[in-house]
Amino acid sequence: MFNVVIVRYGEIGTKSRQTRRWFENILMNNIREALVSEGIEFKKIEARHGRVLVKTNRARESVEVLSRVFGIVSLSPAMEVDAEMEKINRTSLKLFRKMKRELGLERPRFRVTARRITKEFPLKSPEVQAKVGEYILENEESEVNLHEYDVEVGVELMEGRAYIYVEKVRGWGGLPIGTQGKVVALLSGGIDSPVAAFLMMKRGVEVIPVHIYMGEKTLEKVRKIWSQLKKYGYGGKGELIVIKPKEREKIIQKLKELKKEKYTCVFCKYMMVKHADRIAREFGAKGIVMGDSLGQVASQTLENMYIVSQATDLPIYRPLIGLDKEEIVEMAKRIGTFELSTLPEDEIPFIPKHPVIRGSWEEFKKIYRAVFEEEPRKREC
Amino acid sequence: MFNVVIVRYGEIGTKSRQTRRWFENILMNNIREALVSEGIEFKKIEARHGRVLVKTNRARESVEVLSRVFGIVSLSPAMEVDAEMEKINRTSLKLFRKMKRELGLERPRFRVTARRITKEFPLKSPEVQAKVGEYILENEESEVNLHEYDVEVGVELMEGRAYIYVEKVRGWGGLPIGTQGKVVALLSGGIDSPVAAFLMMKRGVEVIPVHIYMGEKTLEKVRKIWSQLKKYGYGGKGELIVIKPKEREKIIQKLKELKKEKYTCVFCKYMMVKHADRIAREFGAKGIVMGDSLGQVASQTLENMYIVSQATDLPIYRPLIGLDKEEIVEMAKRIGTFELSTLPEDEIPFIPKHPVIRGSWEEFKKIYRAVFEEEPRKREC
Repeated sequence: MFNVVIVRYGEIGTKSRQTRRWFENILMNNIREALVSEGIEFKKIEARHGRVLVKTNRARESVEVLSRVFGIVSLSPAMEVDAEMEKINRTSLKLFRKMKRELGLERPRFRVTARRITKEFPLKSPEVQAKVGEYILENEESEVNLHEYDVEVGVELMEGRAYIYVEKVRGWGGLPIGTQGKVVALLSGGIDSPVAAFLMMKRGVEVIPVHIYMGEKTLEKVRKIWSQLKKYGYGGKGELIVIKPKEREKIIQKLKELKKEKYTCVFCKYMMVKHADRIAREFGAKGIVMGDSLGQVASQTLENMYIVSQATDLPIYRPLIGLDKEEIVEMAKRIGTFELSTLPEDEIPFIPKHPVIRGSWEEFKKIYRAVFEEEPRKREC
Repeated sequence: MFNVVIVRYGEIGTKSRQTRRWFENILMNNIREALVSEGIEFKKIEARHGRVLVKTNRARESVEVLSRVFGIVSLSPAMEVDAEMEKINRTSLKLFRKMKRELGLERPRFRVTARRITKEFPLKSPEVQAKVGEYILENEESEVNLHEYDVEVGVELMEGRAYIYVEKVRGWGGLPIGTQGKVVALLSGGIDSPVAAFLMMKRGVEVIPVHIYMGEKTLEKVRKIWSQLKKYGYGGKGELIVIKPKEREKIIQKLKELKKEKYTCVFCKYMMVKHADRIAREFGAKGIVMGDSLGQVASQTLENMYIVSQATDLPIYRPLIGLDKEEIVEMAKRIGTFELSTLPEDEIPFIPKHPVIRGSWEEFKKIYRAVFEEEPRKREC
């Protein structure tokens, strides 16, 4: 029935002409990648007057997949026909009937919204709306209601063709992945870090996922989480990078000797960032993403984040910093990582009973010197 | 009619006993400060079994003010009476009637939700619910509906007293200001930076607002924005700090000579952070907040944020980094800064036509040396 998907994007439209072209191309590439990797056939993908058209007979499946491509604000499976009033009427009625059946309504309230994207069609938009509305009223039990409607019939007219649809599916918005460079995301297996990575991806960043090994169970879990996140990652190709930190035993041993176990978590995070920094350099990534939310747990104080931030001269992005746990959980559920984040993980034997809450950089430095016999890096000069 | 406000908090409840006591005290202080500064009289503020009770005859006004105190999840103006069944019944009926009148409903659907916070009351919660429900049904045209109700009558029983309410007003959640130390927030007059500052305040941070002077009109506007934000700032006392950067003329002049005007915005932001860094040190603040949202405008690329981040060794917090403009605007409207942010501001004559999109740190260094005859600070060691 449907033979095309109308893809609408938001922010890109506001950029300069040149930037817009570039954005559109990346968006079209990501759309192509998404459809190919899900095995959905299509005939053509083209940018047209501020929207992208995907010609395919599998429009509804395409919409499901493309709703996970960032940069897209909304999608409609549509029927493309010649821009002739009779064809427009008949197609509109057909789609209206389909919707009426699906909604199971006796007498649906509806409205018609027409737009001439290019102006060669002889009738103006309100006239098209009136004609289509009349035609539906004549042929189907229904009533027009412009404000409270069960069905909206959309008609977009451009270049001698008409695009008719009755559904508008919301996308995530954001920017197409690949428009904003790369960052390294630290994935721990918890609820927060996948949401943080997701939000950066949503803003067009290609994420390089790094996991610091804790055990097989946790690794298994993180792999599942990354598989889920990859469903939003068309346009980025990152495979999970797993690092087994050789220095861990030494650090834990030394902290015990010094009776500074309370610094374990801060130290651990500092080392994670150091590893992330190295990976970022290898891959040309321009920042590191972490799932910190201020004050959520002991390690997430301004003091401790100060120490951890010294491990790199790259900016650390913390998109969750201002959110409550409840808000983060809600987002995790929406993106499908929550369930996975609550799977069992390896117990960490060396978590101290009373982790330091307001760690001191001076003290941290002393411990670091004791462990490594060198100064800790402090945003290298 | 009401003589008490029940204040419920969320996350604090999950902390250790010791931390909780500390949080409660800060929350109570902030509540006190809010009421005093709004001239609302009260008799007592006390923490009781995981909630705070504010004894006051101006309960509804209090709720309006306290809904802007962070750390609070919900609030109810309530009537406190002795925990005797008859008194509970009569008070519940009174409040039910009041609500019925206000809603203008003939036959409201209602439910009663009772909770024994301490257990000395002889009846169990379901029994209290049944009794109160019956009493209302006997005396008022109404019907019970546990799932779809117009009115919920709440009864909380503790220590020989009953607290009865029919309204639950949502707070912002978050953590009480003062629990998480201080950060400097750069306020520009735009839509984004106030939202960023707000989100940090919401997580319990005291914000020190800094504005880099552009002209009187913009300053006026930023003063209004900060006045609005201060309505959420009970517990923090920051006055707006205005910095007139002496070096600006020199920089603009030199950039012109070098034909590197495209670096103006990056340079400008770098200098802002440098100033913020100095202020942070003076005030013992542990970070800097900025309103960056990735890819929103030319200066907000990973490359440019890398350069800007070098101006301080403090972490830069960017709570909006993962949000779309639309989401930021929506939040600005909710917190009441949007209108103010769209007031007119001084034109900035030196904004380049084509600002650099992917600034290079090497090139930036060269320009910096040309301007200041010294190396730029890069996260000082």
